[in-house]
Amino acid sequence: MGGDFGPSVIVEAAHRFVEQSCSEILLVGDPKQLTSASDSIKVVPASEVVEMHESPSTVVRTKPQASIRVAFQLLRNGGAQAVVSTGNSGAMMVAGIMELGTIKGIARPAIAALLPRLGRDEPVVLLDSGANVDCSAHQLLQFALMGSHYARLLLGDEQPRVALLSNGTEESKGNDVLRAASRILAAERRIQFIGYIEANEVMRDRADVVVCDGFTGNVMLKAAEGTAHVVREAVEQGLRSSLRGRMGLALAAPILRKLFRGRFDPAAYGGAPLLGLEGLAIVCHGASNSNAVLNALRVAERCHRQRLVRELSTAIELLEAEMG
Amino acid sequence: MGGDFGPSVIVEAAHRFVEQSCSEILLVGDPKQLTSASDSIKVVPASEVVEMHESPSTVVRTKPQASIRVAFQLLRNGGAQAVVSTGNSGAMMVAGIMELGTIKGIARPAIAALLPRLGRDEPVVLLDSGANVDCSAHQLLQFALMGSHYARLLLGDEQPRVALLSNGTEESKGNDVLRAASRILAAERRIQFIGYIEANEVMRDRADVVVCDGFTGNVMLKAAEGTAHVVREAVEQGLRSSLRGRMGLALAAPILRKLFRGRFDPAAYGGAPLLGLEGLAIVCHGASNSNAVLNALRVAERCHRQRLVRELSTAIELLEAEMG
Repeated sequence: MGGDFGPSVIVEAAHRFVEQSCSEILLVGDPKQLTSASDSIKVVPASEVVEMHESPSTVVRTKPQASIRVAFQLLRNGGAQAVVSTGNSGAMMVAGIMELGTIKGIARPAIAALLPRLGRDEPVVLLDSGANVDCSAHQLLQFALMGSHYARLLLGDEQPRVALLSNGTEESKGNDVLRAASRILAAERRIQFIGYIEANEVMRDRADVVVCDGFTGNVMLKAAEGTAHVVREAVEQGLRSSLRGRMGLALAAPILRKLFRGRFDPAAYGGAPLLGLEGLAIVCHGASNSNAVLNALRVAERCHRQRLVRELSTAIELLEAEMG
Repeated sequence: MGGDFGPSVIVEAAHRFVEQSCSEILLVGDPKQLTSASDSIKVVPASEVVEMHESPSTVVRTKPQASIRVAFQLLRNGGAQAVVSTGNSGAMMVAGIMELGTIKGIARPAIAALLPRLGRDEPVVLLDSGANVDCSAHQLLQFALMGSHYARLLLGDEQPRVALLSNGTEESKGNDVLRAASRILAAERRIQFIGYIEANEVMRDRADVVVCDGFTGNVMLKAAEGTAHVVREAVEQGLRSSLRGRMGLALAAPILRKLFRGRFDPAAYGGAPLLGLEGLAIVCHGASNSNAVLNALRVAERCHRQRLVRELSTAIELLEAEMG
């Protein structure tokens, strides 16, 4: 029921998805707004909705029939294997923790966002991209481990390169938490740690997993998203200001549109799993179009087939046992 | 002597600058690499150079004849009124503090970077963009005050809008330091505080001054810079892959070049003053071209004419007296 464009993009993505997949879709929400023209798509009614501006923790608790809670109840009862939502991400986090709980040893899940990379078709994984404002060095280690497993399943790379987002590449850079995390990560044999990465290198092919606290990840993600939009608008305004530019734009427009609606629109880039939740949950950007939702459904299917949650659970259990 | 392109861009910018200005330029460094074809440009020899990869604090101390130290000595002795450099910014900070000291009440200067804005010719001021990794709420207040004065002199806006960079606009967002800073700023009548701003809104016309710690500012600035480069490269690669795209690119190229080498190349955007230093110092990006250096020289001239340092000094003195 969430997202900037309402349920129609979800319904469209669901229909495109089931055409190519043997998975089934349950659309959870207001039956009047949700339609199915396929045997593989069913509507599950939910009488309440969490709005984008509402405070997640209070609203989720006071709305037992909210669509996001009903969706997670389906997951808990085995009626579904993954939840995908374009709605209020804070509400999704609260509802997920309430209905499913977290993997043992994880206080709160991290949001693992995907950013496009120049020179690589596969995206880079950025986590935490918004859930945990203050993080300890140990939490960053957990994020690095979970991000590595996720990148391996998603990118098929046996040894994903993990970097810490910092304000320079020298060892002396960063703050106390980052320097402590850097020492722990360098000693952790299950992670291929390559050191610090600067924000201008994230979208290049240098690291496969970039780890940071949720405040820094939010700034990184939104700065990239904002700059991509601003540059696009400036390019189009610049070209429209002359005849020569307008001719160039007319020729370039279909290619630019494909690029900006596809890989290089960070807002539309697939979905971000809540890593550390005891179940599979993919949060999509509010501005997701049906391509983005379709990508998120594919990510969900792939993560389920590869048993991502079970693998993360085992990895964290081993880590916590060794660290005492 | 610094910068990715060596002294030639500096020499070129100096010659372009003196053609339009009644100010004089002193080029400090190796006389063999510095040439003057104008009565308004003199070469001041300095026998040592701080390289980009060298550790600022040790090198500056062990190289008394480093060009950056000689430049600040000129400033201290009244032989110059501003220092502009494309060299190692850490070394500039250390040399500036060593030779000039900071304004009373300021522990370390903040770097006030400029970012382009969509829909406004004037840039937005972002500080601290890299000098102070950990900042107290009181430091953020000082940055807000200094940034307001700088924006007023630079943009001619009597009441610049000041925002704190955060992970959301609601009051509950941010960390402890940001929430404390938000309360102090809201009560400060000399600052027009508009609340939190998210990273995707920084390059739009919402705030004139964006305040954050130097770690967050570094991530914001480098994410914007990196994304602008990556989007540009992706656009050009995308267009080159088809005949239609290549025709469009051929028509659009001069306009794109102007845009990306001008306002929308954050790397090339003028210079960033070290606010809080007891003298005028402008640090340029290492990748500055001669346009960027020319802009930085104009910013330096303007700040000197408007007596920026004296104004900041008075403002901080008043603030500290009132805060006890």
